[in-house]
This record gives sequence, structure tokens and C-alpha cells, in this order.
Amino acid sequence: MEQNQQFFHAHHSPMGALASFTVGEFGAHGGMGLELGAPYAGNVFIGYQDGEGVVNAFPFYKGAKDQSERYVQKDDVSSLKEHIFEDVNRDYRWATDGFAAPGISFKIITPFFDIPDPQLAQQQKLQQACCPAVYVELTFDNTSDQDWTGFFALQGDELRWNKLIDGGEQGLVGVSCRDQIGIASQHPNARAFSHFSVQSALSKMGNNECFMLGPTAGLMIDVKAGEKVTVPLVLGFYLAGNVTYNRAMQYYYTQHFTGLQQVLAYAVNHFDDYAAIAQQNDQQLAASKLNQHQQFLVAHATRSYYGSTQWLFDGTESVWVVNEGEYLMMNTLDLTVDMLFFELQQNPWTVKNTLEQFVNHYSFYDEIFHPDQPEKNYRGGISFTHDMGVANNWSPKGQSSYEMAGLDRACFSHMTYEQLTNWVLCCGVYISKTGDAQFATEQRGRLIDCLQSLLNRDHPDAEKRDGIMSFESARTEQGGEITTYDSLDHSLGQARGNIYLAGKSWAAYLAIAKVMQDLGEQQQAELALTAAQRCADKLADSLDPQLGYIPAVLDGHSSSAIIPAIEALVYPYEMGLLDAVSEQGPYARYISALKTHFSFILNENYCLYADGAWKLSSTADNSWVSKIYLNQYVARKVLKLDIADNVASDAAHQRWQTIGASQHACCDQFSSGKPIGSLYYPRCVTNILWLQE
Amino acid sequence: MEQNQQFFHAHHSPMGALASFTVGEFGAHGGMGLELGAPYAGNVFIGYQDGEGVVNAFPFYKGAKDQSERYVQKDDVSSLKEHIFEDVNRDYRWATDGFAAPGISFKIITPFFDIPDPQLAQQQKLQQACCPAVYVELTFDNTSDQDWTGFFALQGDELRWNKLIDGGEQGLVGVSCRDQIGIASQHPNARAFSHFSVQSALSKMGNNECFMLGPTAGLMIDVKAGEKVTVPLVLGFYLAGNVTYNRAMQYYYTQHFTGLQQVLAYAVNHFDDYAAIAQQNDQQLAASKLNQHQQFLVAHATRSYYGSTQWLFDGTESVWVVNEGEYLMMNTLDLTVDMLFFELQQNPWTVKNTLEQFVNHYSFYDEIFHPDQPEKNYRGGISFTHDMGVANNWSPKGQSSYEMAGLDRACFSHMTYEQLTNWVLCCGVYISKTGDAQFATEQRGRLIDCLQSLLNRDHPDAEKRDGIMSFESARTEQGGEITTYDSLDHSLGQARGNIYLAGKSWAAYLAIAKVMQDLGEQQQAELALTAAQRCADKLADSLDPQLGYIPAVLDGHSSSAIIPAIEALVYPYEMGLLDAVSEQGPYARYISALKTHFSFILNENYCLYADGAWKLSSTADNSWVSKIYLNQYVARKVLKLDIADNVASDAAHQRWQTIGASQHACCDQFSSGKPIGSLYYPRCVTNILWLQE
Repeated sequence: MEQNQQFFHAHHSPMGALASFTVGEFGAHGGMGLELGAPYAGNVFIGYQDGEGVVNAFPFYKGAKDQSERYVQKDDVSSLKEHIFEDVNRDYRWATDGFAAPGISFKIITPFFDIPDPQLAQQQKLQQACCPAVYVELTFDNTSDQDWTGFFALQGDELRWNKLIDGGEQGLVGVSCRDQIGIASQHPNARAFSHFSVQSALSKMGNNECFMLGPTAGLMIDVKAGEKVTVPLVLGFYLAGNVTYNRAMQYYYTQHFTGLQQVLAYAVNHFDDYAAIAQQNDQQLAASKLNQHQQFLVAHATRSYYGSTQWLFDGTESVWVVNEGEYLMMNTLDLTVDMLFFELQQNPWTVKNTLEQFVNHYSFYDEIFHPDQPEKNYRGGISFTHDMGVANNWSPKGQSSYEMAGLDRACFSHMTYEQLTNWVLCCGVYISKTGDAQFATEQRGRLIDCLQSLLNRDHPDAEKRDGIMSFESARTEQGGEITTYDSLDHSLGQARGNIYLAGKSWAAYLAIAKVMQDLGEQQQAELALTAAQRCADKLADSLDPQLGYIPAVLDGHSSSAIIPAIEALVYPYEMGLLDAVSEQGPYARYISALKTHFSFILNENYCLYADGAWKLSSTADNSWVSKIYLNQYVARKVLKLDIADNVASDAAHQRWQTIGASQHACCDQFSSGKPIGSLYYPRCVTNILWLQE
Repeated sequence: MEQNQQFFHAHHSPMGALASFTVGEFGAHGGMGLELGAPYAGNVFIGYQDGEGVVNAFPFYKGAKDQSERYVQKDDVSSLKEHIFEDVNRDYRWATDGFAAPGISFKIITPFFDIPDPQLAQQQKLQQACCPAVYVELTFDNTSDQDWTGFFALQGDELRWNKLIDGGEQGLVGVSCRDQIGIASQHPNARAFSHFSVQSALSKMGNNECFMLGPTAGLMIDVKAGEKVTVPLVLGFYLAGNVTYNRAMQYYYTQHFTGLQQVLAYAVNHFDDYAAIAQQNDQQLAASKLNQHQQFLVAHATRSYYGSTQWLFDGTESVWVVNEGEYLMMNTLDLTVDMLFFELQQNPWTVKNTLEQFVNHYSFYDEIFHPDQPEKNYRGGISFTHDMGVANNWSPKGQSSYEMAGLDRACFSHMTYEQLTNWVLCCGVYISKTGDAQFATEQRGRLIDCLQSLLNRDHPDAEKRDGIMSFESARTEQGGEITTYDSLDHSLGQARGNIYLAGKSWAAYLAIAKVMQDLGEQQQAELALTAAQRCADKLADSLDPQLGYIPAVLDGHSSSAIIPAIEALVYPYEMGLLDAVSEQGPYARYISALKTHFSFILNENYCLYADGAWKLSSTADNSWVSKIYLNQYVARKVLKLDIADNVASDAAHQRWQTIGASQHACCDQFSSGKPIGSLYYPRCVTNILWLQE
């Protein structure tokens, strides 16, 4: 990677363990974290003491200074000379993250693969998929004529460590903390240690290698003069017992591993298998047509997604949760719909699992009102909550952790309409991609309810419908709904009359129509198609010749130009409804209007930053990259627009992550390239779609 | 309390839960902490919003400013006027801690009583003793003509809360976090809430009382104009499952309570019983002859002791652990011997339990060497480790978490000799106070081994013994042993030749002799008495007429004057061996020398600070108050010395806690009244002995 961009934090995570070995930023906190919304506030020490006694280390700890040599005084006992590697080469691939400096290199290996459906798969495959470990290949190349002592260690103020007690023939050496995190290796050159610091251990303060009062622990590796040593080591995570509240659940891996020790042993024994999978992952991305920036962005997004995943077990069956990055909200539905494409490619059962959770626990039937007459309620219909809880706390049935009543189109208001479209779209795309006819049959009645709910929110009186949302959920208590763009201005934040959300409702009508057609429910299909037509017509009609584009909000609250006007095209396209997105199809006028709209606004006057980065709304310096990636795909692949400077845009978006958000692997929300929210976020995997271009 | 001394942190803890509601310092972090070595880094909000909308609160949160009114802007939604109570009256008693300000008062109730022997006691009594809860009586007196909203709330950045789901007829309202901590009340005026902050909740940002994304939660209490409302509320703690590592154990309370909800319900139902016990505690201390400063110091020490206690269950029986304050070392033996008097008064089975744990897991037989010839080893004998582990990590069999080899009389070296005397002294005093003949019989062989071990460490060649320690444990790997005064200079820090430790060995010989006599082991008793005589003679002979006192270390390494020369007299005295501590008894010369020693040094030239506070060593500005209290007792009660300015000393020692260590409830180690270590410490309960004066 470019030398000014190689230091940035990245998640390195097992699948489904809500755990991360976060490392890579210069002089910043990092380490092994469990259930965190940010990098663990510890330090990572990887390096070696050379024959002169100098401690050479990567700069992955708080306070590492960018200078070649300095004397440090730690714990009043050590004054070893310290040298920080400045010239680090980083090789950031889809499933391996490699770092190299003189005499040392290491690669963090985080293979990912389809998690098999727990209801169908062999136990062995499930064990392989849920093993909560990360793999590291650490190499020392001692070309000097003096012996070295290598080290790989973690530190955290409140961490106290135990030496692993070997189960027997395994030959495992390592350390663990509270049976929750551990480092282990089978390599004969490796010794476990714990101490105040790497310095105090190396300077032989006392003769105890495993001094229990120290917050620093890991492995020491003897590297003789002239020797090249490669040490495979594993980082294991484990949380036993119930980890969720209100509804008690455990991690799925507890079904396959009795504890940390077993995780470490299994991971050590299967190191090569996992490394081989990671190599395949790497090769697949490298062999794609994506440019280097895109490859980076895909790899970065994938890591952050897996770091947020939480595969639980409720005593009977698996429960899939994706946590909302720094916010730790559980299965936020407006993220689910964006991560849909990634999950359908990897493990479609997780999408079905999430949809069913929403049905069983987080759906409701509400009333609605018109903002001009807020005291008069009408029948609304079914919808779904924004999320299922926060930080392992399941929210009460039918409630999210996020949505608050009494707010008028402000952050934390309800997202009833958007979540209705989101559930429908996930359902429709899931059924199309998987052909899961049984699920379609099961959801028949619910989708009909969803259709009625969408229609009512346009207008309860069928005569007065114009195709887009005009009514608010009474759950807002006379407030007003918002969209997933909750902290943006009305151009994207307000739900009512919003053309982004109108696009989604058009797509939702199409999704319902498609499922209904396949189920032989012709009447419902017709009803949905009529609504889709009405919506498309309304949007096409709203192309303002004066403005040159469709204004963001059709009720006059915003005439901003917004990129996500085109976003919803992805859903019919991914469902294979190519006619629907064609300029020769039934919605030709709408598609044509969107092309005009988009072509008019993708420039520095409206929706481009000077460096080529995209800006979702002309009136707000506030962009979510997951949505940029999605809209890029729609523009290029669905609308087949020829966009200049794609590579410059990708390079700019890479800089947002590696320079702007270098401490926040990875970040979704930016203001002029500066991270302003949605840190440590899973949603950016929308860019998986690029692999289809 | 005096107005400049009323703001300081105090533990408020159940017995044996290693849990604390720490609060009381002005503008500092505090809250409900589990297994912490410091106050929980959260905030406590207690107060009321008055009819003008002003939020009146006690200053128990970080950032509380000492000014009467200010405008705050929090979460961009609230700008309620805020008023911090400046004039707070604090009534700090043995088991209640009361705070009063205009219109509001609250009392934190932490009753303590004898924990019955789990092998003998009724289940009901055990449940009562282990219930992990703290009790609060909160009173609002609204003499205004407008309604108020009272609040009692906790905040912590990473805390996310659930509303308690009532089990049924109970009528409990409250909140909990991760099923680990909770606040509950049955009062009809109380409502549960959670929000970003008290401000955002009061300013009605949104209409959800329990907004799940907020880190602040508690109870809101309606107080109508003219109404006086008293709300009993309980704070419950719970950690389920295995909490210790290397050897898995659970909290004993898990045997009696299935979870937090049950703890809260039980605590609410038994509120009055616990409050009555606390009242008896208060009355007992108030009725004592102690002056107000002493009463404060006893109450403060007692709270900090219970905050460090951890009553575990290993699957078969109870395991008693006292954690070492901020360091969280488990059952540090040089603390056990000091806390002995408190524990023997409250629940002697815990002493026996600890002694047996040392025997079964943390005893060993070592070799020894003379410092002049470190390569030549001799048979040493039995001794005991410094501690049993750290932060819930049991150390390996026969090892402590603290002791490190290869150090010569420096912090973290071995304490083999001192711990040998400590185990013997605990054993001897326990048997004397309880008359537990069975235990005496069981320990017969071990005490004989201890005697031989003590003798060998004087000199392996009986002919060459002079009564005091001259040999070092080979576990130091040719280093040198230290004492519990580990961070002091050689005057108290070095073990070999130290008169403090020599005093302890004299007392240990006497303890062994007493038990042996009672067991009819006359020969062993004689051997021990001879050794005691040799030790006493050596010490008496060492009174240096030039100096005017006995120099701290008899091998010439220190000629400091130290108060703890007299410390060990407490053990024979408490065992009822009054002859031994008499100027007319067998050790008359020694006792007389100690009187001369002590009388010579208790002044500003040697061992007093200008304000009357005691200074343990003339050459080090480094004192442990637990030891001061113990030596005060010995000087006054055992040596019957008439000490001037006792009250001034007590007042000074109170200021060390309330002003010097106001954030560290309570602190043991001070330098000129400034806390320099041993924060949040359990050992200060040595002052329980004062109640016998």
C-alpha cells in the first residue's frame, strides 16, 4: 500500500463472534476486543529484541513515537533502547493483512466462507464456521550474527493473565485472560510470558516469566543468529453462558466448544485449513476486475462486517444478529437491507433468520395520521421496528431501542415507513435469489398486509393516493418519521414525500407483485403493480425542468439534489426484474427521469467533492459510503451510465478510510472525508455488488 | 461532619460480593462497581427538578462544579438550569452514610453482621448474610407550592439498561444492566427511566421513559407540592456463573439467589430488617468510648473491608477471599494477619477457611541460604505464599501472583519468612480466641514444621542461632526477602535482621508454644519458648544507648527508628498471654526495652509529623495507617503508655482520609498525608481493636 496510507485500523474477526483483533493504526490503542463498539483500549506489541539489546517493534501501541530510537523508562526497572519500525509494508487483502519490516513480518488471517444453514448442515461444518479464532503467521528472519528474542504480546490496563495449562499431547503454549481471550501456539521456540511490559519482561526484572500482576502477556520466541523462524499462532475468543438480556441467549460457538482452551486447540490444529481458505478469498478478490482502490474498499468493508456479526443460540435454534458498529444496535433493519446482497451471497439463511425475527418479535400494526390533521388517526397496517435492541439487550416486543415518540423528523424518531419497505425488499430479494418457495408461501399473508400498509400510508382513501408516503405513523405521537439518513437535513432525513424513500416504495410494490405473481395471487399482484406505476409516474412527473432534477422532497420541504433517488433500482434489478429498470419497460419514464436526474447532479455543482468523492445530497456535507457504493453500482450497472473518473472517486473513498477514518475501521458516515459517525460499521459491504460488474 | 471534610468517597457494599456503590466525593466518578480496584468510572445523579424547572443535584458526578447555578447543554437537546448543592450535611456512621441538602436527604444503608459458618448455619441465615444488595432511603421534602420530580440515577458510558420486568405481585419498578446491577423500589411514586442523561429525560426529549440507547438510568419520583416522600430503594449486584480462573468458583450468593431480579425482590422485602441491623451497628459505635475521629476511622475502614470481601463457592464449600484493594490480590497473607482481629470478632470461620486454603494450595517447603554464601543451600522448611492470585485468577499451587525471584530486598521479592510468621500468628490467635480444639489438633504437625522452619531460618545449625532471621529463602534465587512494608526503605522493607519481623517471630514462637502446651506437646513447647527467649534477649540487647532506641535492622543495614518494633506484642496479648507482654514476665527486659524504644521515638524528631500524625519509620515519609492503628493499640493498651495528643493524631489521620485520600476510600499508604498506594484498601480494620480499649 502507499506509504502514507498503510497505517489504519482494521477489524480482524472470526465470523459471528462479535469479536475483533483490531490493529494497524500508528500509535493508537488496539487489541482483542469482545462486544465492543470501538477498538479495544489496549496495546499490541509485535517485534524483537536484537543482539544489541534494542527492542524493535511495530508502532501498534499508544505512545509509539515516529522516531528511530529513544530511551524509555518503564516501571522504573527497564531502560532498554527502543526502535519503532517506520518503514512498514502493508499488504491488505481480502482475508489476510500482512505487515513487513526489517527482520520481521506477520500476517493476520481471517478466512470467511459461507456459514452453513444450522438446521441442515453437518456438525463438523458448523464447528468450522463458528470457531471464534483469528490466525497469525509471524516470521522472524534473523540475518544477524546474534540471537534475537521475538515477541507477540497484548496489553490492557485491567487485563491479568494466566499461563495456559496444556491439556496434554497438544504442546500448546500461551496465555489467557478470564477464559475470554487467549493467545496460543504449538511452535517449539515459543514461550508464554506475562509481565508489567514487554520491556520489563525482556530486561529480566525478576526471573518469573509468568508474573501474574502484569497487564501484558503473550509469547516470546527464541530466534537464533542466522535463523528464519515462522510461528503460527492463534488468537481465541470465548464468552460463556448467557450473553443477551430480556431474552437469554448464548453464542452459537458454545454449542461446539466447551471453552477457550478447546477453541485454541482446535484453531491450532486447523490452522492450515483456515489459511488455505483465506488464500482462496485473497485470490478471488485479486482476480476480479476491481481496481486496487475498490479491492481495498471491499476488503475493508468485509472485515468490518464480520467484526459486527453475532451468531447466537436461543436454546433451540440459531439467531443471527449484526450489530450496528459503534452503536451496537442489534439487527438494525435499515442496515439489513443494505447488507442483504453480501449475506445472500454468503449465507442466505441469515437473511431469512433475521426476517423471521422481525416477524416474530419486532412487527406491529399501527395507526397513521396526516400531518395537516395530526389528531385524526386512520388504520395504518403492519410494519417493523428500526432494530431489535442494543448492546445485547433485546428490546421489548414490538419496540426498538432507537425509536422515540414525540419527535418531528429529528434523529431518534420512528422509521416506520422505511422499515416497512426494508422488510419487504429483503423478503422479495431473498425469495428471488434463493427460490425458497416455502418461505414465500409462509409470508403470503404478511406481504399482503405489507401491501395494504404501504397503500394506507400513501392515503387511506384509495382515491386520493398519489404513489408516495404522505401519512405518518401514530407511533410518532404527532411527530414525523425519518429515514436511515437520520442525521441529514430534510433532503434525505425526512420520510414523507422523500424521493429516496418513494423509490424504495416503488421497489417494494414490485417485490410484492413478483412474489404474488409466483404464488398465483394475481389480484394482489395487480394491486401492487398499479401502486408501483402510480409511484413511478409521480416521481417521473416530478422531474423539475427548472431545477434539472427531481427535488429531494416532493412536499416542498427540500429541493436538494440527492444521489439516492436512484438507489432503489437495485432491488428489482437484483430480483431479475430487468424490464422494470429498463428505459423500454413499463416504468420507462421514471427510469429516464432518473437518468436525467443523475446525470445532471453528478458534478461539483451538486453531488461531487473536488477530489471525485461522492456527496449524497447537494445541501449536506454528510455522506454514508455504504450508500455511495450502492448508488455507484446502480448508476453503472443498472442505469448503465458511463461515469468519468471512477478511479479518482475510488481513490478518494479509500483515503476517507485510510487517512480520515484510520482509527475507526471502517467508517460509514463522513463529512468532507472526516468521519462523523457510524464508526466501526458493518454496512459498507454494499460494495460486494461491484464484483458483479 | 466538618464542612471542609464532608466530601470523600466511601465504599457502600454488601458483605462478600466484591461489589461497591462508591459515592461521596465532590465532582468525581463513582457508582456501582463489580470486582473493581477503584471507584466505578460512572456518575451518580441524585436530586430533583423543582417547580421552576431547575435541576437540583448532589455533586456526585464528574464535572459537577462548585457554583450555584449554570446552564448546561447536553446531547444538544436540553438546556435546563442546573443547581448543585453546596451545603451538604453528611452523617457518616458505622453502617449508614447520610447526606442532606435543602429539600432532599438520603441515607445509604450497609448493615454488617456475623456471617454464619456455612457448614453449620441455617439456609435462611446464610441467604440473609450473602444477599448482594445495598439499601438507600431517599427522602424529598417539598415545602414549595409546585410539584417536583425527584431522581436517583446512575450513568456509565458503556452501560445500557433494561426496565425491570415485574415478576408479579411484587410491584417492583426499576432498571437493570446486563443482569449484573440494578436499582429497584416498590414505592408507588417511583417510575423507572433510562435516557441519555437525567437532563434529557427531564426535558422530555421524546416521550419514551425507557429509551434504551441512553447510558443513564434509575428512578424518577413524583413529589407533589407540600408533600414529603420517603422512598426506600435497593441497589442489587449479581455475577452469575464461574467468576474465578484456574480454579473455577462462583459467588456464594448464587447458591441462594437465581439472579439479580431475585436479589432485588428479596432486598426490597427485607429492607426494614437490614435497616434495623444498620441502626444497631450505628448505635454500637456511637456508644463506644472512641472520639469522633476514631469513630470515623473505624467506620471508614469497615466499609472498605467489606467492599473487598468475596465469598465464593467451589461446588462443595465456601471459599473466603479478601481482595487487596486496588491491587485485587487474593487473600494476601500479610493483610490477613492484620484483618484477623476484625474477622475473629465478626466471623471466625473465615480465618480458619483462609488458613486452610493456605495449607492446601499455597504452602511449600523450601531451601534457604545465607547471604554471605548464596550458592550453598540448606534445608529451610514450610512456609506460605504472599497471596493466592490476582483479580480472580488463582495462582498456581505453591505460588503467589506477587512474588518474583531474582530480586534482592526490592518490591516484588519473596516474603517467605514474614508469611511464615503470619500464618502461625493467625493460627495461634484463631485457636486461642475460638478454642477450636479440633483445628489445633489438625494443625499440630504443621505447627511443628513451622517451628522448625522458623528455627532453620535463624540458623540451620542450632548452635549458631541468635533468635532472629538470618537466612533467605532459595525461592529468591540468591536475592533477598522483604516484608509487607515492601515499598519502604530497608528500615522496614528488608526482612533479614529486621526488628519488626523479629518481633513477629518472637510472637510466632509464643503462639506455637501456647498451642503445643495445650496439646500436651511439652517438648515442642519448650523448644519454642527457648527460641522466643533467644529472640527477646537479642532484641533487648540491641537497644542502643547511643541511639536511644533499637535500630531497625540489626545487621547494620538500617539504624532507623521504627514504630512497628512494638507491633508484634498484639499477638500474645490477644492470645491472653499477658505475662509475655508484662514488664514483670519472662520477657521483661524485651518489654522494657520496647517501652524505652517507643517512648524515645514518638516525637517529631523521629516518628511524628508536625500535626500529630504517626510516621512508621524515622527515615521514610511512607506510612501505612492500618499499621499505625495497630501500633497505637499496642502502645496504649498493651504497653499501657500514656500518649499525649491522641485526639490530634486521630484528627490528622482522619484528614489523611477525608482530604488526602478523598477519592480513594479508604487508603492505607500515605506520604505526609498524601495517598501513594494501597488505595481502596481493606486492611485498615486493625482499628477494630480500639473498641477493646
